[in-house]
Amino acid sequence: MDQQGIIEKKWSIPTNISEKGKYIPGEIASSVRTTIEPQKLQSVAGIGIGVPGPISPDGKTVVQAVNLDWTQMPLKEILENELGIEVTLLNDANAAALGEMWKGAAQGKADLLFVTLGTGVGGGIVLNGEVLNGCHSSGGEIGHIPVRSEENRLCGCGGRNCLETFASANGLMLSMKKALLLKEESWPELTPPIIFEKAAENHQLAKEVLAEFTDILGQALAGIMNTIDVEEVVIGGGLSEAGDQLLKPLQEKMEQYVFPQIKEHFTVEKALLGNEAGIYGAVYASLNEPK
Amino acid sequence: MDQQGIIEKKWSIPTNISEKGKYIPGEIASSVRTTIEPQKLQSVAGIGIGVPGPISPDGKTVVQAVNLDWTQMPLKEILENELGIEVTLLNDANAAALGEMWKGAAQGKADLLFVTLGTGVGGGIVLNGEVLNGCHSSGGEIGHIPVRSEENRLCGCGGRNCLETFASANGLMLSMKKALLLKEESWPELTPPIIFEKAAENHQLAKEVLAEFTDILGQALAGIMNTIDVEEVVIGGGLSEAGDQLLKPLQEKMEQYVFPQIKEHFTVEKALLGNEAGIYGAVYASLNEPK
Repeated sequence: MDQQGIIEKKWSIPTNISEKGKYIPGEIASSVRTTIEPQKLQSVAGIGIGVPGPISPDGKTVVQAVNLDWTQMPLKEILENELGIEVTLLNDANAAALGEMWKGAAQGKADLLFVTLGTGVGGGIVLNGEVLNGCHSSGGEIGHIPVRSEENRLCGCGGRNCLETFASANGLMLSMKKALLLKEESWPELTPPIIFEKAAENHQLAKEVLAEFTDILGQALAGIMNTIDVEEVVIGGGLSEAGDQLLKPLQEKMEQYVFPQIKEHFTVEKALLGNEAGIYGAVYASLNEPK
Repeated sequence: MDQQGIIEKKWSIPTNISEKGKYIPGEIASSVRTTIEPQKLQSVAGIGIGVPGPISPDGKTVVQAVNLDWTQMPLKEILENELGIEVTLLNDANAAALGEMWKGAAQGKADLLFVTLGTGVGGGIVLNGEVLNGCHSSGGEIGHIPVRSEENRLCGCGGRNCLETFASANGLMLSMKKALLLKEESWPELTPPIIFEKAAENHQLAKEVLAEFTDILGQALAGIMNTIDVEEVVIGGGLSEAGDQLLKPLQEKMEQYVFPQIKEHFTVEKALLGNEAGIYGAVYASLNEPK
């Protein structure tokens, strides 16, 4: 990508997770060397990487990346040694947040909360144009905000009733299944888009489940707003495809729950960049790395 | 106060709230002029003020201060014109957070959450040594994080079931009153210290009410930790006088609810400076004002 954010070349390689993913850094490096000609490579100012896991506060190490089978992977050092180019690491949700700020739904804003509603619930917080990574690489881990509930939903993190167990695609489907079971009703197929579709067709139970989903999510996001007080909330991830059917009631719920001084002074926007958000954000972070 | 934080002179004047508190700035200025001799006053590097209300993002105006009857008070300009000394304004909870960082329970830390549990619930967040004031002067307004509950407690902010309605002195007393009423029990006097005392004497109902209090507060603070991931939580305000009887179970609850990577890596401390925290923090902010 050039410094204005125009992608010059885009490619992907398979992820080799054998032997605890130890070949991945080397395969990234050799793929870079074979894809970009040596002369061009010499002019590359930096490499930004959005990693599916937390980054140590010093920015050097991937603390853990479950899907890559990494623990304490010194990715920055390995790639810098292999390629001789400065590497900037950041968490993928944080990268997406920066990407949406630079080229997406939050252009011109410096303070935002990015939320992914996918299989899980992820978050990235940007304050004064900089990612809030946190003292233990857990800044923006909003999917694990505990929700007070009579239910007892086990979360992947080991906790109970984390926001993610209610406000993710999986959480939404579980809520719908439970509601259907109570009414002794069943649907031939159950996916988030089907739930939104049924609700749009005025299916009472689907509407109730979505209202509860929005209430839980809206309340949690309002609590975050009352804590960090940013100017924009960007919603990405698969569930954001529902568009206004999700975002409008979500903003209403947030308006209901936020502190009076914030009311009507923030926006809730659909993410614009999809999977490319992280690409833009990683490059942005690299360009803005303190030298 | 000198630049090392030694208080050289301390005094107070009555607060004159007549005519929407319009005399207060002038009375502060004349009190400064009559208390500090002119020659000394010339050598004063700055004035820091912790204000009981939100400060505009540009740091110039008190947006509102209910107890002083102020709305949009340009306090910085007024006092700078009157005294010819640079004035730094900050919210009182934010000032207390900085004070505890500089001279109190969080010395040596740069990232902390300060919580006051008094009549209400206030908060101040410090990240990288700087106050998070927020885009709408509402950073750290954690007392107004909505709590999911079957109850319907009206908050002073106009919201329902804000954290403050459960986790303040008033909220605790309301919970105790409700619990006693249900059991058709009554106490001759009901104050937070009496509730803590009864619980220490193994009074079942007092213990249950405090357990619920701690659960609600601990869950909310854990949610904040999962959002901003700071290294220390400092608890001040009247209820913090309960000391370990409050702080130990609170830390346990937080440990139960925080994200795994934060668990066992943060501390919960009692504030050390009491009402003086804001004095230290206001001076700290003045000394560290970007020039």
